[in-house]
Amino acid sequence: MKKLRIKDIADGLKISKTAVSFILNGKAEEKRISEELVERVEKYIQEVGYRPSPIARGLRTGKSNIIGLMVESISDPFFATIARLIENEAYKEGYRIIYCSTDNDTEKTKELINVLKDRNVDGYIISPPPGVEKEVNELIKAGMPVVMFDRYLPKVKTDYVVIDNEPSAENATKYLIRQGYSNIGMITFSSSLTQMKGRLKGYKNALKEEGLKPYVLEIDFTPEEKVMVQTIREFLVANPKLDAVLFGAIQAGSCGLKAMTQMKLKVPEDLAVISFDDHDIFELFATPVTAIAQPIEKIAHKVIGLLLDRLDAEGGAAEPREVVLKTKMKIRGSSVVKNSKKYLESK
Amino acid sequence: MKKLRIKDIADGLKISKTAVSFILNGKAEEKRISEELVERVEKYIQEVGYRPSPIARGLRTGKSNIIGLMVESISDPFFATIARLIENEAYKEGYRIIYCSTDNDTEKTKELINVLKDRNVDGYIISPPPGVEKEVNELIKAGMPVVMFDRYLPKVKTDYVVIDNEPSAENATKYLIRQGYSNIGMITFSSSLTQMKGRLKGYKNALKEEGLKPYVLEIDFTPEEKVMVQTIREFLVANPKLDAVLFGAIQAGSCGLKAMTQMKLKVPEDLAVISFDDHDIFELFATPVTAIAQPIEKIAHKVIGLLLDRLDAEGGAAEPREVVLKTKMKIRGSSVVKNSKKYLESK
Repeated sequence: MKKLRIKDIADGLKISKTAVSFILNGKAEEKRISEELVERVEKYIQEVGYRPSPIARGLRTGKSNIIGLMVESISDPFFATIARLIENEAYKEGYRIIYCSTDNDTEKTKELINVLKDRNVDGYIISPPPGVEKEVNELIKAGMPVVMFDRYLPKVKTDYVVIDNEPSAENATKYLIRQGYSNIGMITFSSSLTQMKGRLKGYKNALKEEGLKPYVLEIDFTPEEKVMVQTIREFLVANPKLDAVLFGAIQAGSCGLKAMTQMKLKVPEDLAVISFDDHDIFELFATPVTAIAQPIEKIAHKVIGLLLDRLDAEGGAAEPREVVLKTKMKIRGSSVVKNSKKYLESK
Repeated sequence: MKKLRIKDIADGLKISKTAVSFILNGKAEEKRISEELVERVEKYIQEVGYRPSPIARGLRTGKSNIIGLMVESISDPFFATIARLIENEAYKEGYRIIYCSTDNDTEKTKELINVLKDRNVDGYIISPPPGVEKEVNELIKAGMPVVMFDRYLPKVKTDYVVIDNEPSAENATKYLIRQGYSNIGMITFSSSLTQMKGRLKGYKNALKEEGLKPYVLEIDFTPEEKVMVQTIREFLVANPKLDAVLFGAIQAGSCGLKAMTQMKLKVPEDLAVISFDDHDIFELFATPVTAIAQPIEKIAHKVIGLLLDRLDAEGGAAEPREVVLKTKMKIRGSSVVKNSKKYLESK
């Protein structure tokens, strides 16, 4: 398809190129161009199909219409789904996404920020690792829109979208206590990041209130899944008193279920289970697993909304906005009342 | 960090900028620059830290160092994992990825190809929907490197990486027959694409050889998972004689397992199961599911390798290369011998 140029529109309608250009750039009113002419141009474009070149628009506006998206790993189902939803909404607004996976690695992330800067992206969506405060603050100081999600950096003043990690974990742990479990472990990733700290804190709060002892395993994340499964096995062997486990993230949960399957531990008779994040594997597990579901669609919608707001804003930056969304516990068979009929039946 | 410029290196070593430039562009030998000088420059760069600006390099070479990656959906675990592996290898070679999800939609894909063209990407990695032959051929004619994967377009002569779909499906179906199953259904996505046609053909070949009747459900893909689950339920209700099912793709398999769970059908007593693609949900399902695993790492490695080859090639394009990789059947409990002890035990 040959692109329709401003000249083609001008020639087609026998009007000046300047007028067409003003209209396309939303300056018709300012330039006192008649309503009638604007409508004629719009109709002509609809009929013939004019697609402004993003590069030409980029040259004019200094914008690349590309958003940089930095997630921990694009192959993690949580981030992959968010990335997809963000892509959909960005696309509708004329933006494309360059993504990178940070591996939660501080040095790699610093380098990636530079790479995206060189690529002239218009804004950043980041689920940051620890230690990149300086680099992100420099972006913000340079007037670059930055939205964080999943976790935030307390020393960086910018928009973020997170969930209510602490009450979610506290609520799930209290639920297990009410169901009759008293030796409740938490298996999570070792991390100084806000979301992981919040989840661990919520779990500990609930136990403290009831005078129960915490059993915590903090795994170092590694792409070698077998290593993580083995670490969990060793923890379960070393803590035979455990009657329930809260998993702090989807990949802790899937590794944990693999470890338990290998050890022939039954859910919920040997161990009741609740995991953060919902996913098919929890729904389809032998005993379906109770999950703390994040509002994925809402998170994606908020993230891109905040960024588009800033991209559209003329002049001064708005105050940082902090969005905290609620999770929803999806109760399934893995957390039934201890020693209940259903519990015993599953023996 | 202030960027080290060619001038800084030249000044620092008291040599000409031209010499530094030749060395950085790998033309030392051609320009007869001494080994000793090359080493001095390299050492200086290591000590002081020179990072060539991709934009500057882009201006010099006309390259953007961005690769366009078009997959069906970045939230599909198969494509998400491939995307991650491609990203890793591209990153090491100095390339970044812009990704888009095509939804297997012809019109959307045509538009996305234009968008990436406007973005000046250096090359394309595409798992194409049907009907984009013209657009892809235009890219190739314009000298643009294009590598396809997962499926290919028979009318487009370019590199591709696929798996041996037909023998894989034939082999899996024959395996079910050998295990004693005789009413074997195939549940797959309706598609005119090579990979789906190959899988269906392999299944039919195996049945024909044994004089068995095919039972085929071709689902229209939709992001509304519930709709697909319901379609599968209706098919299973309408075909009560089925004793085994082959799923043609990961999302057919996960929807199928959900349908079977809802209908309280047991695996393998009510239905033996094999699915294309391996994934945690198959490993962790109540009865672990036999899977036709694609060599994901190899696919990603080959795809990016073919593209980098073409990006590095000076002058004339090489002949299209067609890479067909083998799958591996991971045998699990969902396909044990019919009426065997193990089979009856699971009742």
